[in-house]
Amino acid sequence: MIIDGKEIAKKMYDELKNEVSKFKSKPTLWAILVWNNSSSLRYIEQKKKWAEYIGINFKLEKFDEKISELELYNKIKSFNENPEISWYIVQLPLPKHINSQKIINNIHPKKDVDWFHPNNQGKVLLWDESGFVPCTPAWILEIFKHEKIDLEWKVVCVIWRSNIVWKPIISLLINAWATVLACNSKTKNLAKFTTQAEIIIVAAWSPWLLKVNMLKVWAIIIDVWFTVIDWKIHGDADTRLINLVWSRVTPVPGWVWALTVACLMKNTIKAYKIQNK
Amino acid sequence: MIIDGKEIAKKMYDELKNEVSKFKSKPTLWAILVWNNSSSLRYIEQKKKWAEYIGINFKLEKFDEKISELELYNKIKSFNENPEISWYIVQLPLPKHINSQKIINNIHPKKDVDWFHPNNQGKVLLWDESGFVPCTPAWILEIFKHEKIDLEWKVVCVIWRSNIVWKPIISLLINAWATVLACNSKTKNLAKFTTQAEIIIVAAWSPWLLKVNMLKVWAIIIDVWFTVIDWKIHGDADTRLINLVWSRVTPVPGWVWALTVACLMKNTIKAYKIQNK
Repeated sequence: MIIDGKEIAKKMYDELKNEVSKFKSKPTLWAILVWNNSSSLRYIEQKKKWAEYIGINFKLEKFDEKISELELYNKIKSFNENPEISWYIVQLPLPKHINSQKIINNIHPKKDVDWFHPNNQGKVLLWDESGFVPCTPAWILEIFKHEKIDLEWKVVCVIWRSNIVWKPIISLLINAWATVLACNSKTKNLAKFTTQAEIIIVAAWSPWLLKVNMLKVWAIIIDVWFTVIDWKIHGDADTRLINLVWSRVTPVPGWVWALTVACLMKNTIKAYKIQNK
Repeated sequence: MIIDGKEIAKKMYDELKNEVSKFKSKPTLWAILVWNNSSSLRYIEQKKKWAEYIGINFKLEKFDEKISELELYNKIKSFNENPEISWYIVQLPLPKHINSQKIINNIHPKKDVDWFHPNNQGKVLLWDESGFVPCTPAWILEIFKHEKIDLEWKVVCVIWRSNIVWKPIISLLINAWATVLACNSKTKNLAKFTTQAEIIIVAAWSPWLLKVNMLKVWAIIIDVWFTVIDWKIHGDADTRLINLVWSRVTPVPGWVWALTVACLMKNTIKAYKIQNK
């Protein structure tokens, strides 16, 4: 069975739209775009489209790709100090001559609805009750909620390569009392761990890494990212034999974006409610 | 074989003492003590003793246990603003009428050598290269270093109950490319996971939880904490049959304190070097 991420995102947007319609004023989300690559542009378009659908003002400031680190830093500082800007995002990635982590570290934690600042990441680690979650781990939790999957007592295998996302997701899984098997590219005999798991979250950038014989029957696969081979898009799970052993799989791609954007909107609305209560 | 934590700590103290002897000025570490229970007092005594052994000024400010949260908060604020105080610690636990996390959140991250502030915890999560690590996970890494255990390719089972320590340690293990099996009290069939691990880190407050038949041959056990039963101290590993199956075990207790204190001193020296370079 396919888990329909776009449907989950649509449901979230409609719930948020309904909430915003009761607000006394319209929330505004600001965005900074530096690198105009096609992927970033599409992301920003999606954010604009859905923000407006929900009823959020979306204000974009575009900069030249050649902006210096110092100029961008000063921009961030002016955003932090501007009382009219309650929340903003910096669209990643940034051009290579700019140190992204340094920029992220300078976003004011209270204005950081992407939840990227170390202070906010630390709160995820510390089981903070404020309920904010960085957008990628957040959408994985939305899937579990939508599919009515209770993580308590469950064994979850996480196969990950990147750093930004996997530790928050591991933290969140542990908070929910799951037993977590955290694997990486240096794990010996990966199948030994995947076959023990009721849920597998994979973002290894390795097409067809997960084969049918590496899965427990009824396993739920969250396939996070994709690779392009011969103009075709492939996830990390070999979905060709899906019906043989497992019940539910999230297919790549497209809807990943939809859900990430939906979670950003959710964070913005939450921040608005805290500010206005 | 028993891993001698006190010996590791002593070696660390001597290395640090040697470093400090070359400094142009003496570093000073300030401490705030609010709750005068016997465990906190002993901890503070140990910190004082070893700070002075190494050559660090140790300045203690004691407060009445009845101090209000606001008064303590104002004290923290004055410590943050005082340019003569470069680093300080707040001895935990605090009395129950004070919200510890709120106090920790107000320590200036740059003065926080315990590395407890969310901003600093977030840096651990984000694979920060500054090298600071909260003291409890830090000493576990010191043991691995001392025992020449390379974590890459290794399977490590972590059995934990508390929140402050386990996520940083999991983050650090992942950074070192270990495969981590994170178990908790709701893990079904714990032995299934412990028998797969070359290293087990346990702090379950459950005496003799780890029995011989739950271990892989040659497993290394890091037994973090202890329970007192009938005036005797027991760890979570059943050490009575130690020679039957496994090679190395850290016995509780006492040396845990020694190593935690040693790691605090290491953080202080590191902070001094950064400030004075």
